Amino acid sequence: MPRVSTDQLAARRQQILTGARTCFADHGYEGATVRRLEEYTGLSRGAIFHYFRDKEALFLALAEQDATRMADVVAEQGLVQVMRDLLRGGSDRSWLGTRLEVSRRLRTDPEFRARWQEHSGALTAATRARLERQAAAGALRDDVPVPVLAQYLELVLEGLVSHLAMGLPADDLGPVLDLVENAVRAPLMR
Amino acid sequence: MPRVSTDQLAARRQQILTGARTCFADHGYEGATVRRLEEYTGLSRGAIFHYFRDKEALFLALAEQDATRMADVVAEQGLVQVMRDLLRGGSDRSWLGTRLEVSRRLRTDPEFRARWQEHSGALTAATRARLERQAAAGALRDDVPVPVLAQYLELVLEGLVSHLAMGLPADDLGPVLDLVENAVRAPLMR
Repeated sequence: MPRVSTDQLAARRQQILTGARTCFADHGYEGATVRRLEEYTGLSRGAIFHYFRDKEALFLALAEQDATRMADVVAEQGLVQVMRDLLRGGSDRSWLGTRLEVSRRLRTDPEFRARWQEHSGALTAATRARLERQAAAGALRDDVPVPVLAQYLELVLEGLVSHLAMGLPADDLGPVLDLVENAVRAPLMR
Repeated sequence: MPRVSTDQLAARRQQILTGARTCFADHGYEGATVRRLEEYTGLSRGAIFHYFRDKEALFLALAEQDATRMADVVAEQGLVQVMRDLLRGGSDRSWLGTRLEVSRRLRTDPEFRARWQEHSGALTAATRARLERQAAAGALRDDVPVPVLAQYLELVLEGLVSHLAMGLPADDLGPVLDLVENAVRAPLMR
């Protein structure tokens, strides 16, 4: 009989992720030292690195969690809704900035980039799947291939993440997102 | 009679900026130490900081140089052309990444953010001015206010900068930029 149940393991793993997310948000990737990760998670380094091989693995697990959460929204409501949620919820902005801080690493370390893309792939897949469904239903413009529409939406999302992470004013971006949404839709009248 | 002519001063200033740009690109903002800045510019720290108060001032001067250069392209050909130039020219990508690395600082240090926005204001001004001219000529869609179109284009530019800085594949983004350009234009037929 195992000493710790699967539920307990999952709860402990989530406790680590939640603490680490706030730690990255407050101190950035470099600033999230092992000592600080211990403080934020309330666990020893031994416990933390029992669940995650290293800081990089922890960071990528958080990226994956984001991607999965966003993918759920995408499946139901589309990528523009993910952007609207980002605009509304101010709390995630500092965490999102951590993604920008690792951009140099992503660019210069192909292995890290491959792992990152693997962990964030759920969002890309969900975006394409939804667009394919919408295209089949005649809800999308038909003069631009679906992969281009998907890349377009992803590029705007990257811009929004960057914008928010820099703390630039974003209260008035609602009409911009309307425009983005409109640009992929089928015209109302032909 | 001055020991050094104005031309010589300007040339020296440019020598510092050119070296510093490569230094930031190679080592990032934090990694651009005074010693490395000396190496890359071929000048002593005394000479460098005679022209620029500190590393921050050097960084902001480079941001201003970018903004001015991009503003020139915007005035003639628009912000989407700036994006197409970014796609073509691979060399600037590592420098652009430095902008992302300071995102935490931009978000958490209002004074730095204000200085940054001041230094990058030329691009915003040029973008709005060009869009106003195009609107007056009937070349833009008229159902969305010009400031929204300007914010839209700037958001996409931010996404592209982020995308390139992360070293993500960008060879196939041409059609995405066509879509962006199309989204602000007046429809061909009414």
